[in-house]
Amino acid sequence: MSTIAPTAPADPTGVPLPQQPMHDSGPLFVPRPPRALGEEVELRVWVPHSWPVSAVALRTIVDGEISTAVLAAEQPHAAPPGGTWFAVTTTVVNPVQPYRFCLVGDPEASAEVPRYAWLTAAGMVPWDVADATDFRLVAHEPAPDWVDDAVVYQVFPDRFARSAASPTDEHGRFAPDQLPDWARPMAWDEPPSLDGMVNGQQLYGGDLDGGIEHLDHIQELGADVVYLTPVFPAGSAHRYDASTFDRVDPLLGGDEALVRLSRALHERGMRLMVDLTTNHTGDTHEWFRTAQADAGSTEAGFYRFHEHPADYRCWIGVPTLPSLEHSSPELRERLLSGPDSVVGRYLRAPFLADGWRIDVANMTGRNGAEDLTHEVARTIRATMREVREHTGRDTWLLAEHGHDASGDLAGDGWHGTMNYTGFTRPLWAWLCPEGSPLNWLGLPMTAPRIPGWAAARTLRDYNAHLPWPSRLHSQNQLSSHDTPRTRTVVGDHQAHLVAITALAALPGVPTVFAGDELGLQGLTGEHSRTPMPWEAVDRVRRGEPVQPSTVVEEQIDPGIWPVLRELLALRRRHPALRRGGIQWLHMGEDSLVLLRTHPAGDILVHLARAAHGRVEIDLAHLPPTEAPEALAAIGGARASATGQVLALEADSPGATITLLSRSAATIPGPDGPAPTDPVQEDTP
Amino acid sequence: MSTIAPTAPADPTGVPLPQQPMHDSGPLFVPRPPRALGEEVELRVWVPHSWPVSAVALRTIVDGEISTAVLAAEQPHAAPPGGTWFAVTTTVVNPVQPYRFCLVGDPEASAEVPRYAWLTAAGMVPWDVADATDFRLVAHEPAPDWVDDAVVYQVFPDRFARSAASPTDEHGRFAPDQLPDWARPMAWDEPPSLDGMVNGQQLYGGDLDGGIEHLDHIQELGADVVYLTPVFPAGSAHRYDASTFDRVDPLLGGDEALVRLSRALHERGMRLMVDLTTNHTGDTHEWFRTAQADAGSTEAGFYRFHEHPADYRCWIGVPTLPSLEHSSPELRERLLSGPDSVVGRYLRAPFLADGWRIDVANMTGRNGAEDLTHEVARTIRATMREVREHTGRDTWLLAEHGHDASGDLAGDGWHGTMNYTGFTRPLWAWLCPEGSPLNWLGLPMTAPRIPGWAAARTLRDYNAHLPWPSRLHSQNQLSSHDTPRTRTVVGDHQAHLVAITALAALPGVPTVFAGDELGLQGLTGEHSRTPMPWEAVDRVRRGEPVQPSTVVEEQIDPGIWPVLRELLALRRRHPALRRGGIQWLHMGEDSLVLLRTHPAGDILVHLARAAHGRVEIDLAHLPPTEAPEALAAIGGARASATGQVLALEADSPGATITLLSRSAATIPGPDGPAPTDPVQEDTP
Repeated sequence: MSTIAPTAPADPTGVPLPQQPMHDSGPLFVPRPPRALGEEVELRVWVPHSWPVSAVALRTIVDGEISTAVLAAEQPHAAPPGGTWFAVTTTVVNPVQPYRFCLVGDPEASAEVPRYAWLTAAGMVPWDVADATDFRLVAHEPAPDWVDDAVVYQVFPDRFARSAASPTDEHGRFAPDQLPDWARPMAWDEPPSLDGMVNGQQLYGGDLDGGIEHLDHIQELGADVVYLTPVFPAGSAHRYDASTFDRVDPLLGGDEALVRLSRALHERGMRLMVDLTTNHTGDTHEWFRTAQADAGSTEAGFYRFHEHPADYRCWIGVPTLPSLEHSSPELRERLLSGPDSVVGRYLRAPFLADGWRIDVANMTGRNGAEDLTHEVARTIRATMREVREHTGRDTWLLAEHGHDASGDLAGDGWHGTMNYTGFTRPLWAWLCPEGSPLNWLGLPMTAPRIPGWAAARTLRDYNAHLPWPSRLHSQNQLSSHDTPRTRTVVGDHQAHLVAITALAALPGVPTVFAGDELGLQGLTGEHSRTPMPWEAVDRVRRGEPVQPSTVVEEQIDPGIWPVLRELLALRRRHPALRRGGIQWLHMGEDSLVLLRTHPAGDILVHLARAAHGRVEIDLAHLPPTEAPEALAAIGGARASATGQVLALEADSPGATITLLSRSAATIPGPDGPAPTDPVQEDTP
Repeated sequence: MSTIAPTAPADPTGVPLPQQPMHDSGPLFVPRPPRALGEEVELRVWVPHSWPVSAVALRTIVDGEISTAVLAAEQPHAAPPGGTWFAVTTTVVNPVQPYRFCLVGDPEASAEVPRYAWLTAAGMVPWDVADATDFRLVAHEPAPDWVDDAVVYQVFPDRFARSAASPTDEHGRFAPDQLPDWARPMAWDEPPSLDGMVNGQQLYGGDLDGGIEHLDHIQELGADVVYLTPVFPAGSAHRYDASTFDRVDPLLGGDEALVRLSRALHERGMRLMVDLTTNHTGDTHEWFRTAQADAGSTEAGFYRFHEHPADYRCWIGVPTLPSLEHSSPELRERLLSGPDSVVGRYLRAPFLADGWRIDVANMTGRNGAEDLTHEVARTIRATMREVREHTGRDTWLLAEHGHDASGDLAGDGWHGTMNYTGFTRPLWAWLCPEGSPLNWLGLPMTAPRIPGWAAARTLRDYNAHLPWPSRLHSQNQLSSHDTPRTRTVVGDHQAHLVAITALAALPGVPTVFAGDELGLQGLTGEHSRTPMPWEAVDRVRRGEPVQPSTVVEEQIDPGIWPVLRELLALRRRHPALRRGGIQWLHMGEDSLVLLRTHPAGDILVHLARAAHGRVEIDLAHLPPTEAPEALAAIGGARASATGQVLALEADSPGATITLLSRSAATIPGPDGPAPTDPVQEDTP
C-alpha cells in the first residue's frame, strides 16, 4: 500500500500559494498588535497582481455581530511591482476579536480567480467557513516580551547532572544517606529501562548544583531558559507525584540549590522555569495524608473521595495521583492565589522563577459537568501580576496539553501550551521512516509516514485555531520527557537536521529536551530520560571525537549540536524567525517551503525530507524584498536564485534558509518607527 | 471571468465519497443518543470493503484528556455484502463530549487508502485536525421531542391577515381609532416600499384574529408551528422596538387575540412560537422612559448611559433601540427568570406559547469584556423548565444568529439558531443566477453564483461545528422578514423548486416565511414584508387560475405551493427526512447528492441547479438497503436504478428523492426496539 492519498489535494482556490493574497498576525501585516481594549489597530493585506480584486473587505465580530469595512489601497514610498498593499484600521472592542478578509474578485479581469474568497489563518477558501480559523486580535495583557525571543532547554533533574556533592557507592550508584523506599539507585552510565513501571523508581541522583555546572553547555547551544521538570519531594524519580509543594527535594539540593541555580541563570541573563501539578498531587502528599486521616479536615475537601479514605478520584485512574478539586476555595488559596500560594512563593525571592509550566493543564479543574480550567489559569495569571508588583518580573505561564489546546487559549489564562499537535506530531509523521515501530497516539497503529502536504495542513490549519500570541508563546519541541526521542522518531542524521531546522524556524518557542542535541535515543518517555553523558558531551563541544564506552555514548551524533547551535544563532540574528508571521509557499510530498514575514526582512525556509525535484518560488508575487541571500544550506538541500525566481532542490534530506531583506520604503503606513527588536538592539 | 476556481478540489483522501467510511449523529449510527451524564452510548461506523482497515478506533475527550478505544466488528443477522459494521460503547462523562474515529488503513490490502484518516463531522481527513468539527455527544437536556418533526410557518403580524374587525378608511387603508404617531396607514394591496426608512412606519393593520382565519392554509401546507414576529406594542410595524413587554399590542387584538390564536392552534395540534428582544427595547419602552426620567431608578440600571439621559448604548448605534444590560440582576429577574418574568408569562396560561425566538441573540449580553450570552440563554431555559412543571409543556428556545453560531450552541442554552450560515446562504449562492444584483453579506459585492461543491463544503463543514442536536433544532429558512425573498434570490420557478426540495430535505426545521410558498418577491428584508394576497391565495389552493389585479398578485407562482406541500408531506412520512443523519455522496458543480440516514430506511436527495451529465451512485458501498424506490422527480431531474447503481440526471433544474428501505436485520446491535418515530406512530 502506498502512503496517504496518491496526490495532494489541489488548493481550493486553484491558485498557487505564492500568488495568493497574504495576511498573517506578524508585524509585517499587524504592525502594532493590541495590548488593551479600545486600541486602534492597523491591519494590512498584500494582494498580488496575479489575484485581481475589485475590493478587499474586513469582516470582524464586535459584541457578537458582524462588522465590515473596506480596505484602502496604500502607496508606500517605493511602489511595489508585484502587487498592492491594502490597509484598514479597526478598534478592538472585545478581548478576543475574530477577523478575516474577503477578497472580492474583479469581474473585469481576465485571470481566473474566485468571485469571492475568505482569507483566514487557514489560508484562502472560496466558500463560507466557520469562524474557528479566523485571525484574532487579543487584547488581554500579552505574554512577557522576552518569551518571543526565548529558547528553552528542558532539564529532567534526576538525569541531567550530578554535582560533586552527589553521593555514590562503590558500584557508582546514587547513595544518599536516606534512600527513599521507592528508589532503585542507579549508576549514571546505565541506560534507563524500557519498563515503564520500573523507570519511575530508577534514581540516578542528578541534582540542581550539577545543573549549575553545565550552564555553559546550555548557553553555548543558544538556549536562554532552563525548564526544570518538578523539583518537589515525591514518590518517584519524575517527581510528578509531589509529597509536598513547600520545599525543594533535598535529594536535589533543597531550596538553597534552587536559589543557587536561579542566581546562576540570572547572572548569565538566562531564566528559570519550574513545573507544577495543579491537577493532582502524589498520594504521599501531606495534604492527601491529612485528607485520608481526617474526613473532616480542610484538606479532605482538596480531593474527591467516592468512599473515604481508600476510594478517590485520581488522574486517569492511577491511585498514586489523587486529583485536586479546584472547587475548594481553600485549595485555590493555598495552591494558586496570591504571593503566599505555592504558585506565588516560587516566583518571589529568593527563588525568582521566571515561569510555571503546568502539568496536565488540559485536565486541571475538569470533572464531569464541572470545568474550572479557565478559572485555574486566570487565578495563576492574577498571582503572577500580583507578584510582579513586588519583583518587577514578568513571568510565563505554559500549559501542558497533549491534543487540541485551542479552546483553552483565550489569552487571559495560559500564555501558551506544549504544541504537540501543531508542531511535534506533524513533523514526526512527515520525517519518520516507513515502518517505524513507534506507537501512534495511543491508536492501534505505528507511526505513519505522511506526505509533506498532509503535515503542512496540520501545521497551518490546526494552528489557525490558536490565537497567534498563544502559538508564538507555546513551546515547539521535537521531543520531551514524555515522548520518544527525536532521533529515534526520525531515524537518521539527515532527517534529524531537517527536524532541528523546523525547530529553529517555525513560530513558537524552540524547546530542546536535554540530550536531543546529541542525538540520544529513546523509545518511550520513560526510556528517553537518559542521563547526560557529560564526558562525551564535552568532547563534542571541543570538536574532539567521541570514543564511546557506554550504550548512551554510542548513541551520540556529534553532528547535531553544531548545526542546532548555528540555527539558533540564526534565529537570534533574524527577528523574522522569532517574531515573524508565517506564510506557506509550497506543500509538496517531500518538500515544504514557508516564509517567516517581518518588516525587517523575510526568512524563507525550505525543508526537504528526501531528494526532490526543483521547486521554483517566484518572489515577484510576494511583498517586495531585496535579492535573496543564502543563510544556510543543510544536508542535501540547496537554493539558488535567478532574478526573482528562487529554485529549491535536494539530493537527500536537508534544508535551506534564505534571507529576503526588505526596505522600509516598500511598506505602507505612517512613517512611525518600525517595531523594535530587543535582541537586535542588544546585539550591536 | 468564470465562477470560482476552475475545478472542484479533490477529496483529500482521494476516494469517492460513497466509498468512504461513514458515521453521523443520526439514529442509524447513534441509536440511543444520551439524555443525561453517565449514560452509555453505542456508536457505529460503517466501513465499505473499498476502504480496507486493520482497525477502527474511537478517540474521545474525557475531562480534557484523550481516551481511545478499538471498535469491534459487528455481525448483523443479515451479513452486509458491501462492508462491515463496527461498534463501540462509550460512557458520557462531560456534558458536551467530542469524539471522532480513526480509520487505520490495512497495510496488507492492495487498495489505495490512507495509512490513517480521521472521520469527523466534516468528513474523512488524512491528517491531524482540530477538534472543532468532532462529532459531539450532548448530555444536556434535549430540545422538546416535537421540534424534530416540526415545520414552522413564519408570520409577520402586520402583514399576514386582517380580521373583519380591522378598521379601514375609505381608501382601504388601516384606520384605527388611535393611529400611532409614527404610522403611515397603508392599504392591504399596496406593496411595501423599498425605502427601509419608511417601511417600518407602514402600518397595514394585520391582526392576530386575521391569522386565525387562515390556519387552514398553514396546516394544509404542512406546517405545524406558527412563529409570530413580535406582538408587543412598539414604535414601528416590525415591533422589534417594544414599548412594553406586559401586553400584546391592541392593534393586533391585544392579549385576548393572542390567547384565541394559541387556543385555535392547539386545537389543531399545532403550536405557537413568539419573539422577544432580550438585546434591547424600543426607546419608547416604559423601562427606558423611567430610566431616562430618573437616573437613580432601578430601570436606569437596565441600560448603559454614557451620559444620562441622552447618550446611551444601543443596538449597532440605532438610538431607538437602547441595549439591555444583563449585568443587572433586577433586569434578569423581570425579563428572563421564573414564571412571572416576561419569558415565563407568555409560556403560561392563558397564552401557552410553545417557544421563544430570541431576537439578536448573538449580541444579547455582549458588551466589550463582558459576555453574558450563555447566562441569558441558560436563565431562559431554567424558566422554561420551571414553567413546564406547571403546564406540562416542553418549549423550544431558538436564537437569532446571523453568522457562526457554533460557539453559542452548547446545548444548555439555545436549542438552535436561525441557520443562515449553514443553510440559507450556501443555497442562495448556489442557486442565484449569474449577475444577481443582490448585496452579499454587507460586502462590497453582489450575490455570487458558486459551484455546488463550494456550497456543499459550507453545508457540510460549517455545520460540523454545530453539535448535531443544535443543527437539528435550528430553523432552515430560504428567506425571512430580514432578507430578500427566496424567489427574488433564485430568480425563477425551477430554481425555486430546487430550493424548496433542499428546505424539506436537509437537517433542521423547515421554516417558511409567509408568502414564500406563493413565489412572492422582495429585494430586502423590509421590502419582503409583503401583505398576503388572500383572495389569490385561495384561488391557488383551489387550483383555479389567478387573475392578478395588483403588483403582489402578479408575483404569484401557483406552482410552488403544491410542490412544497408534497415535499413536506414526504418529510412527514419518512423519518429519515426529519430525524435522519446526513452523508454527502456527490459534490458537483451543478448537482449535489446527499443521503439522510435512518434505521427505517435512507432517503437519497439529488439536487440539480442546471442540466448536468449522468451522476452514478453505486449503492453497493453503502450500508445495505432494499431496491431504490423513486418518491419524487421534480423539474428537469430524474433518477433511474440499474441493479445497485442509481443514475441521476437533469435536463434543467430540478430534484429527485429516492427511498432506500432498510431491513432491521442489516443493522447490528442488541435486538432491542428500533428508535420510535412519533409521527409514524400517529399515522397508521
